[in-house]
Amino acid sequence: MNSLNDLPTPAALLDRARLEANIARMQRRADALGVALRPHVKTAKCVEVATLQRAAGARGITVSTLKEAEAFFAAGFDDILYAVALPPNKVDAALALVRAGCALRVVVDSLAAAQALVALARGARQRLSVMIEIDSDGHRAGVAAESEALIAIGHHLHDGGMDLCGVMTHAGSSYDCTSPQALVAMAEQERARTVRAAERLRAAGLPCPVVSVGSTPTALAAGHLAGVTELRAGVYAFFDLVMTGVGGHGVCGLADIAMSVLTSVIGHQADKGWILVDAGWMAMSRDRGTQAQAVDWGYGAVCAADGTPLPGLVLRGANQEHGIVHAEGEAACDPDTLMMRYPVGSLLRILPNHACATAAQHDSYRIVDGDRVTARWARFGGW
Amino acid sequence: MNSLNDLPTPAALLDRARLEANIARMQRRADALGVALRPHVKTAKCVEVATLQRAAGARGITVSTLKEAEAFFAAGFDDILYAVALPPNKVDAALALVRAGCALRVVVDSLAAAQALVALARGARQRLSVMIEIDSDGHRAGVAAESEALIAIGHHLHDGGMDLCGVMTHAGSSYDCTSPQALVAMAEQERARTVRAAERLRAAGLPCPVVSVGSTPTALAAGHLAGVTELRAGVYAFFDLVMTGVGGHGVCGLADIAMSVLTSVIGHQADKGWILVDAGWMAMSRDRGTQAQAVDWGYGAVCAADGTPLPGLVLRGANQEHGIVHAEGEAACDPDTLMMRYPVGSLLRILPNHACATAAQHDSYRIVDGDRVTARWARFGGW
Repeated sequence: MNSLNDLPTPAALLDRARLEANIARMQRRADALGVALRPHVKTAKCVEVATLQRAAGARGITVSTLKEAEAFFAAGFDDILYAVALPPNKVDAALALVRAGCALRVVVDSLAAAQALVALARGARQRLSVMIEIDSDGHRAGVAAESEALIAIGHHLHDGGMDLCGVMTHAGSSYDCTSPQALVAMAEQERARTVRAAERLRAAGLPCPVVSVGSTPTALAAGHLAGVTELRAGVYAFFDLVMTGVGGHGVCGLADIAMSVLTSVIGHQADKGWILVDAGWMAMSRDRGTQAQAVDWGYGAVCAADGTPLPGLVLRGANQEHGIVHAEGEAACDPDTLMMRYPVGSLLRILPNHACATAAQHDSYRIVDGDRVTARWARFGGW
Repeated sequence: MNSLNDLPTPAALLDRARLEANIARMQRRADALGVALRPHVKTAKCVEVATLQRAAGARGITVSTLKEAEAFFAAGFDDILYAVALPPNKVDAALALVRAGCALRVVVDSLAAAQALVALARGARQRLSVMIEIDSDGHRAGVAAESEALIAIGHHLHDGGMDLCGVMTHAGSSYDCTSPQALVAMAEQERARTVRAAERLRAAGLPCPVVSVGSTPTALAAGHLAGVTELRAGVYAFFDLVMTGVGGHGVCGLADIAMSVLTSVIGHQADKGWILVDAGWMAMSRDRGTQAQAVDWGYGAVCAADGTPLPGLVLRGANQEHGIVHAEGEAACDPDTLMMRYPVGSLLRILPNHACATAAQHDSYRIVDGDRVTARWARFGGW
């Protein structure tokens, strides 16, 4: 299988040169900031991608499900942070991974979860490595750096015999920043609050060796990471349209986006300036992450089959297996021209709003080196 | 595996009693309208569900991908309509199904696609059964009933040796209707324009035995289906929140929704009235289909583990593996009460906006009979 023309459509494409450049860029960034990089593998869920990240210098991985932890552990990744608060019904699966030899770290952000975790681990005569999640921006989970709960959770874990290995946060609000200044400020807030939480734990006589922060936007915006030991980021490996707009100016360009969806033209409503393609929301996901940004890319930005952006062509509509590309602005033309330029059967590539969501709609990536398809890499799904 | 407590979370649940009632309801509807029911299996993508539909009286199935056609044909379903316009790069796969004995019907809505199809089929010395897609509401694909193109496509297929078996349409605009009257009018428009297209083909001396229309909303709203021979509908088997609001009054109630997502409480931001759960957009999809309806259900309506709706609890936020349930209106309460009512580790069920999209995030359904989990049914994905 050597050519895009040989692929079924829709299909997820991964441009190897862009992928490797993106991985190298974030590793250089972590090196310059003096912290370890622990990539979040929830974007790609792909052993080959994580292997490239490790080869570039990453230390350990971050996962969003225990299914990922199990799959990556089976593939030889044994230093894993499961970055979602662990409820009681997942403790057994976490303990099983530890028994099998995985250096797994889990997360809690409440005394209730800490109590359940300690009780179940002690009942199994096992020890879990646990991080406390810090709420650094009010967007989701975590305890406040200044809270009583932080110290109470720390004591319960440590005194209960668990390995209290540190604090972690994810400043997801960074995705909503609309200026470079706001992004820099959010990165500093993420750092400062998490470091403060670590200092409070240590002042209470508790261990806190690891201070883990990160998101792709804050990782690329941070002025310094004093007091931080590790950086987590995920979507940078692929980048996406949201990342071209975050912080107003974006943290990448269209030409950095490594993942795209190959699609076939299946028809037209030429009078309306519409090209119908076989990439609907099943192939793109329903993610509309650029809706509130300065440039709203609909369900995706349209490129020629070779990856060259086609300004004015946007995937505005998506049903399950139908995508509706609108020809707007400079791309608007008469019906005959539209059908001649993009005839039935021709191929286009669509860049995704949110690579994590679009990748999740596919079971594998077709690896593109220049104009050749050189491999197919599987990805995990499910729980 | 007998109890919901034994399931990993998040997990897709399917209530068997509701599923069977929904299937029976649509079959009665088709019977009363005097048309065959050809269910769209893209919602469930599940052999067991399609088997129940067939047992209830369905004749043939509709699919949205050739992968579904191949999987259902392998499972013994041999009368299949692939309801997305066939581009040239999928003709070979369609021909292979026909050679294997599948009574496959494919769809075109352009002369370009018809020409490619005829050339490839004749090159393979095969005959394809083809339907022409009619644009009955301007929302997506199809040719107008009054167009020159309709007759030109019909002649090209018929004269080229294909089996021109009829016309089909899908009035997807029905999803946007905001009153029962508008829905009835849309159903009549869908019927009338498609029947008119069939009459024009016949008047041109072309065969057109099958006249196929449908969507769940128009199927349930149509006053009559004179001139129509078959009805297609898909989401009715599961129903969803969009269907509770479509046409203003909805075409089902919350208590009819057969699919839901089981989730665990993983934490709280009690001061904000938030319950954090392990069903994020990976489990629910990014579909926000109720956003423009009278009731915006966020990412889903929250029920107790036994399926009883919990008014005022709505899944307002969704990250990849985190859901944020807001306690609003009558559900608002002080932080201690919120954490006591919905403690870490407790189970909730979330009803989906759009069953097709949410189901697609899962590889199987856990079948719930009353309060027992009695089976696990696999579903297909991919292309």
